[in-house]
Amino acid sequence: MSLKGKDLLCTQDWTREELIEILELAEDMQKERFSYKYSEVLKNKTFFMFFYNPSVRTRQSFECAATELGGHAQYLAPEGMRLKTAKSAGETVEDAAKVMSRYACGIGIRILEDKVTYYGEGHELLQEYAKWADIPVVSMAHDKFHPCQGLADVMGMRKHLGKDLRKKKLLQIWGHGALARSWSSVQESILISSRFGMDVTLAYPEGFDLDPAVIEATKKNCEEADGKFEISHDPYACYDEVDVVYSRHWMSPRAYQNGEFLKSKEIELALKYPEWICDTQKMKRSNNALFSHPMPVDRGHEVTDDVASGNRSIIYDVAENRLHVQKAIMALTMI
Amino acid sequence: MSLKGKDLLCTQDWTREELIEILELAEDMQKERFSYKYSEVLKNKTFFMFFYNPSVRTRQSFECAATELGGHAQYLAPEGMRLKTAKSAGETVEDAAKVMSRYACGIGIRILEDKVTYYGEGHELLQEYAKWADIPVVSMAHDKFHPCQGLADVMGMRKHLGKDLRKKKLLQIWGHGALARSWSSVQESILISSRFGMDVTLAYPEGFDLDPAVIEATKKNCEEADGKFEISHDPYACYDEVDVVYSRHWMSPRAYQNGEFLKSKEIELALKYPEWICDTQKMKRSNNALFSHPMPVDRGHEVTDDVASGNRSIIYDVAENRLHVQKAIMALTMI
Amino acid sequence: MSLKGKDLLCTQDWTREELIEILELAEDMQKERFSYKYSEVLKNKTFFMFFYNPSVRTRQSFECAATELGGHAQYLAPEGMRLKTAKSAGETVEDAAKVMSRYACGIGIRILEDKVTYYGEGHELLQEYAKWADIPVVSMAHDKFHPCQGLADVMGMRKHLGKDLRKKKLLQIWGHGALARSWSSVQESILISSRFGMDVTLAYPEGFDLDPAVIEATKKNCEEADGKFEISHDPYACYDEVDVVYSRHWMSPRAYQNGEFLKSKEIELALKYPEWICDTQKMKRSNNALFSHPMPVDRGHEVTDDVASGNRSIIYDVAENRLHVQKAIMALTMI
Repeated sequence: MSLKGKDLLCTQDWTREELIEILELAEDMQKERFSYKYSEVLKNKTFFMFFYNPSVRTRQSFECAATELGGHAQYLAPEGMRLKTAKSAGETVEDAAKVMSRYACGIGIRILEDKVTYYGEGHELLQEYAKWADIPVVSMAHDKFHPCQGLADVMGMRKHLGKDLRKKKLLQIWGHGALARSWSSVQESILISSRFGMDVTLAYPEGFDLDPAVIEATKKNCEEADGKFEISHDPYACYDEVDVVYSRHWMSPRAYQNGEFLKSKEIELALKYPEWICDTQKMKRSNNALFSHPMPVDRGHEVTDDVASGNRSIIYDVAENRLHVQKAIMALTMI
Repeated sequence: MSLKGKDLLCTQDWTREELIEILELAEDMQKERFSYKYSEVLKNKTFFMFFYNPSVRTRQSFECAATELGGHAQYLAPEGMRLKTAKSAGETVEDAAKVMSRYACGIGIRILEDKVTYYGEGHELLQEYAKWADIPVVSMAHDKFHPCQGLADVMGMRKHLGKDLRKKKLLQIWGHGALARSWSSVQESILISSRFGMDVTLAYPEGFDLDPAVIEATKKNCEEADGKFEISHDPYACYDEVDVVYSRHWMSPRAYQNGEFLKSKEIELALKYPEWICDTQKMKRSNNALFSHPMPVDRGHEVTDDVASGNRSIIYDVAENRLHVQKAIMALTMI
Repeated sequence: MSLKGKDLLCTQDWTREELIEILELAEDMQKERFSYKYSEVLKNKTFFMFFYNPSVRTRQSFECAATELGGHAQYLAPEGMRLKTAKSAGETVEDAAKVMSRYACGIGIRILEDKVTYYGEGHELLQEYAKWADIPVVSMAHDKFHPCQGLADVMGMRKHLGKDLRKKKLLQIWGHGALARSWSSVQESILISSRFGMDVTLAYPEGFDLDPAVIEATKKNCEEADGKFEISHDPYACYDEVDVVYSRHWMSPRAYQNGEFLKSKEIELALKYPEWICDTQKMKRSNNALFSHPMPVDRGHEVTDDVASGNRSIIYDVAENRLHVQKAIMALTMI
């Protein structure tokens, strides 16, 4: 099995075996972090990071990943470039991608939230890059999916719950706050955890439905892996007996209207559900659950300090895993 | 012959032998791209990239070039720095250049279009840096010249037409579009191709004259190399019997007036000449010519899709050559 | 003695022996600049540079330092990140610092002038990062101190005056100009030079007092090292018999009022003291003094061209030392 040349827009596009190959290499890379084993894997090679939206974790972890493999991640922001974007004319993606393929070993793209005008536009842009580029295109989070986050999440659960995640119960729960975030991390999480046999409960206030196609795919994943899938609108009962609570705010399906991203309206809406905070009281209903979150955490809104900084929180481990899975992705697809 | 320490503001400042040394090393670097032969040439060394104007190809190719030689290209944008620019007071170029010489092995500077207030101001800034810096200063495109592009163009023609370019016919032709681009690539192209013995036809609508001093130098180059130089204002007949069609829009000599860059006026003017598009019909008059362009291509205006993506197009090869010639320049002048 | 893991917010927090260890390593690193001795010290390692304020020297020298040690300095600007800053809500410093500690070997932070709303706010932010980070936090200049500049200054004086600086006379003098600069370099300079036994004269127009706590600490340093400290408001007599003239503008204690940085008022005030320029006439009163300045120099205001470019000027040497001391700090604290 060779992953060389493969794009990664969503973990759902890859086989379970391919995902496990990434995870196992990532786990070894964590153990052997600064040994000579992986120190020159990307020697003299460039990975382009294309940030339509800025980012903390993603920027830091991708650039560190390339450095730790002996290569270099080049930071590119479209405003500094005369490229065609979702919103403006300029050089075609065909030309940009074909030239980038001459220079680099891979392209990462981040585009979501206010940089798209309708749900799915970011995904289309990634597909367009993937179509023309001769080198792998990796999502660094876009409006639909966030495969590196999904892999980091699973790596974290494997570490704390054991490698066999079958029948473990994941609560994927909406968090309140002055936010309007894309569906990427959440959709990726339910897709990948259902692939690995987890029971998935998706909990959110009515009106915050995710992409129906993703829900369908998740249900099918659960069926195939003999897991359960359910949707809950009860911010308390949904915690019962779960093994992992994964909190994260997301925007409503009404966030994009007529090509506009209605951020302030979404924030106003999101603030109406303060009971959707993850706190110690609710966590007590769980099976001594791990607390996970893709960060940045909006403390005091999505989750209380005592849970986020508590001894069952794995948020920093998961953040660290971003580095390791991205190194593994680069090593397996780009050289 | 040693190139160590030499600035590169225009290929015209170098001997033909020096240019050939760069081209031959670039060709070998292409062949041996990731071998150990060149992988540590710039180890631990820094090349400063100084972008008054942002850029796609130039940023990507210079940063990749340093990475592939084992060094690092540091991205610097003047707005983030308290440096004297063409337009504002601050630290003198003397002080900036002398300190940069203590840190790095070379300095690249890009300044053109809206970042200068009159034609030649960018060239003066590069000369000022070159005067004070103890390390090589390389143009990454400025208002007058673009030596790395010129070398990449010649490397592309050598690959597709053979190393002896004498008597090959180059059509350097203006392209229409909503654009107002500096003369750098075009002036560099006619200067360097005439050095290598090509017959040069410069074709453009009346009113789009280039720098008379460059035209004079090109004529002299042609005389010395036994080539021909002519100017045409016929967007059809100029294609007759040529071996290479190099299309590129450029601004008129009236673009800068009283310290202002009249961009919108230039764009309005440029759009009046739609017949100056390079298309299949016109290409048929040529000697099965190669199509070249320094990119970004304004498809549908400068050139049609079928030509730009056609099997005689060498635009991606030439873009790739930017990497190789820049690696060769760094290796020969900066260590 | 191990410096591993130590933060560096001010040289005053370190022992004299620790500072000498940095200086001696820096001096050796200068001698052996591109030998294999130090070429892989930071191999595969990342240093985060966090620029609330942009910078020339600091950016260039820190990024070069990491490159010369075989590692990589990653440039981060808070505006591109959803982080809590001195002025806005967002991710907590706790979360940011803990994740950064998973990725990198050290964090540099620069925050001063218009990016703080009162004197000391930048220092508090660095202390907050240092509290939560598991890796060293280094000041890249903040509103109170600039330890890397202080070390570079001392390294420069050691080179030109000999390693024993005891009883050498330093004139730390205010420079006029259209400026409103933080106290960092100046306060660091009087603190560190007094540690090394120099006699320090601090000269400035009335109304430009520095932090009283820093003055007290400097006096105590002088007592302990058997040096002298005095304050002068005479822009001529203060030059008498000194060995080093260190010129630098600084803002008045009234620069921050009610959370506002009154830059234009400060500039207006600073321009009232043209006699506080360092010129040849005044330098003649000195003991053939060296001229030093942390750059950027405001030539014609802080100092005349003939002094800044004269044969007793050590400004470029000191600027170069930034590189060497920062390499030594990284090597001793971060691996």
